[in-house]
Amino acid sequence: MEKKKILVLGGGFGGVFAAKELARIDRNQLDIELINNNNYFVFQPLLPEVAAASIHSSDAVVPLRLLLRRIQVRQADVMGIDFDKKIVTVVQGFRRIPIDLPYDDLIIALGMSVDLKRFPGLPEHALTMKNLSDAHHLRTHVISCLEMADVATDAELRQQLLTFVVVGAGFSGVETVAEVNELIHRALKYYRNLKHEEIRVYLIEYAGRILPTFPADLAEYATRRLQFNGIEVKTGVGTKSATSTAVELTDGSLIPTRTIVATIGNGPNPLVEALGLEMHWGRIKTDRFMRVPGHDGAWAVGDAAEIPLVEQPAEDPAHYAPQTAQFAVREGRQLANNLIAKTKGDELKPFAYESKGSLASLGMSKAVAEVYGVKLSGTLAWLLWRGFYLSFLPGFASKVRVLVNWLLNLIVPPNIVLVQSALPGTRYIHYRKGDKVLEPGMLIDGFYTVVKGSLKLTIDNPATGEHFEKVFGPGDHFGERVLLKSALRTGLVVALEDSVVLWISQKDFTRLARAFPFLDSYFKDYIEKTFGGTDKAFAPGSAERSHELEPTH
Amino acid sequence: MEKKKILVLGGGFGGVFAAKELARIDRNQLDIELINNNNYFVFQPLLPEVAAASIHSSDAVVPLRLLLRRIQVRQADVMGIDFDKKIVTVVQGFRRIPIDLPYDDLIIALGMSVDLKRFPGLPEHALTMKNLSDAHHLRTHVISCLEMADVATDAELRQQLLTFVVVGAGFSGVETVAEVNELIHRALKYYRNLKHEEIRVYLIEYAGRILPTFPADLAEYATRRLQFNGIEVKTGVGTKSATSTAVELTDGSLIPTRTIVATIGNGPNPLVEALGLEMHWGRIKTDRFMRVPGHDGAWAVGDAAEIPLVEQPAEDPAHYAPQTAQFAVREGRQLANNLIAKTKGDELKPFAYESKGSLASLGMSKAVAEVYGVKLSGTLAWLLWRGFYLSFLPGFASKVRVLVNWLLNLIVPPNIVLVQSALPGTRYIHYRKGDKVLEPGMLIDGFYTVVKGSLKLTIDNPATGEHFEKVFGPGDHFGERVLLKSALRTGLVVALEDSVVLWISQKDFTRLARAFPFLDSYFKDYIEKTFGGTDKAFAPGSAERSHELEPTH
Repeated sequence: MEKKKILVLGGGFGGVFAAKELARIDRNQLDIELINNNNYFVFQPLLPEVAAASIHSSDAVVPLRLLLRRIQVRQADVMGIDFDKKIVTVVQGFRRIPIDLPYDDLIIALGMSVDLKRFPGLPEHALTMKNLSDAHHLRTHVISCLEMADVATDAELRQQLLTFVVVGAGFSGVETVAEVNELIHRALKYYRNLKHEEIRVYLIEYAGRILPTFPADLAEYATRRLQFNGIEVKTGVGTKSATSTAVELTDGSLIPTRTIVATIGNGPNPLVEALGLEMHWGRIKTDRFMRVPGHDGAWAVGDAAEIPLVEQPAEDPAHYAPQTAQFAVREGRQLANNLIAKTKGDELKPFAYESKGSLASLGMSKAVAEVYGVKLSGTLAWLLWRGFYLSFLPGFASKVRVLVNWLLNLIVPPNIVLVQSALPGTRYIHYRKGDKVLEPGMLIDGFYTVVKGSLKLTIDNPATGEHFEKVFGPGDHFGERVLLKSALRTGLVVALEDSVVLWISQKDFTRLARAFPFLDSYFKDYIEKTFGGTDKAFAPGSAERSHELEPTH
Repeated sequence: MEKKKILVLGGGFGGVFAAKELARIDRNQLDIELINNNNYFVFQPLLPEVAAASIHSSDAVVPLRLLLRRIQVRQADVMGIDFDKKIVTVVQGFRRIPIDLPYDDLIIALGMSVDLKRFPGLPEHALTMKNLSDAHHLRTHVISCLEMADVATDAELRQQLLTFVVVGAGFSGVETVAEVNELIHRALKYYRNLKHEEIRVYLIEYAGRILPTFPADLAEYATRRLQFNGIEVKTGVGTKSATSTAVELTDGSLIPTRTIVATIGNGPNPLVEALGLEMHWGRIKTDRFMRVPGHDGAWAVGDAAEIPLVEQPAEDPAHYAPQTAQFAVREGRQLANNLIAKTKGDELKPFAYESKGSLASLGMSKAVAEVYGVKLSGTLAWLLWRGFYLSFLPGFASKVRVLVNWLLNLIVPPNIVLVQSALPGTRYIHYRKGDKVLEPGMLIDGFYTVVKGSLKLTIDNPATGEHFEKVFGPGDHFGERVLLKSALRTGLVVALEDSVVLWISQKDFTRLARAFPFLDSYFKDYIEKTFGGTDKAFAPGSAERSHELEPTH
């Protein structure tokens, strides 16, 4: 008899535990394959510890191949699903040619995405905390802020660099702000020019209090602990917009900062959204058995699925399974059992589970916990937090590594190694009216195209008395002198209104213009026409500095 | 009395040990500052272990601020040195405005760079092993080759993915090939579709034998060990050129591969080269006291310096200090003592040191060693290797972390987590005559501009019988249909001769064209003119696939 082919899309808690349970019960009758875009499972609860350098980034993840040794794991991107033909299309490997994979049963466990589009500037300027790269990037970013503040000569810039804002005070926000705050204060003793009292750390929450899923008294204890550790907790106020230098709140206030971490804005996975399935609150509607109505063999589980807990659910979140790891694990197991029951013609069981409690770490060896209705706070809760997550973390190797690192942290100093990641080729930058984009004397770094708003360039040459002004609007560009190999900026560019600019790095822009004669001549003409030649519009100091040494990378 | 200002440029062995020794002897009279482009010191001997995932990447480095707690550390790029005015210009921090730092004494410890320009294609297609990012990148690359080979359907591609070539068989080359080979074979059991006998690992050395600084019998033992572990050792043959799919050797043979690691090609640091100092073999000539002749207060140390060991050195490498960590450490200490002697008006001592021996790890718990003239090989030499480097590794925290990881590796499986780094915005790609650049059905990934050579596009539409051909030369481009949002390639592009192409990613190219109306209209016109409209030149299958779902990133 041919084995039934089961495809699991997504390697989070829901997908992994469904696949594991299927393999455990009946791997001889089933051909199970799990498809994920990364080759590892992310243990979300430990991501804030990665951001704080308490554990190594690879310790918060487990290779899927190790975790699921009995089944096939495929690292690929899902492109689409044909529910009628029962085919999933994936793109994978080197040549990235789409491949069709047929299935008998399909488990959709693709989770949710971050959607910050409602907040202008936030998608471009906020860090997120969804996956391993995010956590790693946050850690790198925080340490680079300390490095740059240590040598900053401008007081305003220094204040921005030493201000850290976390938006959203659910589990992820609270644990992230606590861990990042701890990292900063532990690291400070290695930065001779920085003082503890210069650091500002904010936690911003739109709701009336932090940790909404916890009892009010525990949330209050948590607020006091965070405040005691120097964190400013702002509740009842949301985020309105962000730029590269500040975050604006709904009460109109502005916090100047170079670090915004957004733990808000859960939105549907774009792939899930494009499937044409019936959705509710950004999730796939399922029946109580986790089947997707109307599509034979299709199931959904975890954060991507909206699983009713009662027979006639109303518009009440309490009538649906919450989006937590605890629930996803039980959903995955139950789904596996239902799938096998279906195969055998047995009766399916509706999903039912009650939360056993919640835990939130507050940093500095403190936590809050509510377990089986018992409330705990302080060091005991923190030990419970660590013990629970260590036992919950899948894979023996990971457990050992995390435990060893926790013990090592008691005796060794924090890891402030700054491994800079490559800058992207292009990025969008939001500016607020009055923001300086470029200043004379800055090292040239890239080419700018205006997407929205307007900006003004001013070049003054005190030696000759020459003065030059130009206003740029959408489609206009500046910084093309990158192509002339001059080393330093000569002009001042200021935003005349709130504006958005597309930046492309000097390296990528120069390569493109040189390879592409059409572009190169366009820019040379433009410079001739606008500035009256390549030698004009140079500010003093620029020429003598233009010895053009490569930075020592 | 004003303190004397001492600047140390470079945080490798030479610079760090000079700075440490200065601080130890006389930190009250001296104002010492070390400037490095990274905030950490790289312990080079452990880089191959990072590449092999035996230790975490951050364990092979030590934050300079922890290592040099008594002196000022500045993370900055050195732009230039004015020896007459005694000023170093650096660029640092967020605004990247150059800053002038005056000095009384200057220690140049900027090391050497990798220079692969002599080998066409190698700078673009070879990985290097100089710094932490290199090691991390190599590890990521090797694991991604395994992931892609596991799902590859094309036999030729699969063979390229499973072939790994290390060029150069000095310490770095031998240890790298040994460690990478060990990682691959340990990881294989998690890849169901890959077999040990499919793996090809090559070590290529231009000289007649590997490990030239070792006695011949130890080098021969090392060769046998590497061969026993499945590595093909090719001596007496050099590298000629490289493309994205193969490396060509000086004997005319071609090894198809997607992984080339170059441990050859030491060249002067570009900054050092631009200083206008007297150079020899790419290094700054110094006197026997490590002073740079003709420039008051300037010293050089480590790999960047050519320090004579005898009074009248000839054109003989043996007359100069070799470029090893062992020597750099002694040079740094001696330089510090000479600098202080100069301040006090005491007599300076010429640098003199004799190597105590060498060690090279061969993987699989074997090594070769020659210490105080005693030759060792096998497991004992390997234990000596580990013991020596552990004691040599600076910083207590790092020692503990590395030891713990070495012990953990005995019981836990290898870490095959693949954290993909962001692709660069642009890159140059070399193709050999006949190489396929694009094939119908591939997912569109970017825009290509021809830099050198010629390539031919062919589009066939069997449904309509239409046939389209076009030859591209330098300055021409293809792949602009990226802008039309079509999801898959419809044409075949083949290199008509050896060619170089500039690739820019779909994301960056689309953003640029959209922001910049001039470019957008140029491409729309071009597509209309060349293909007769946006709907033409579509191959079958392309249209139905163009549902354009975002890959699940």
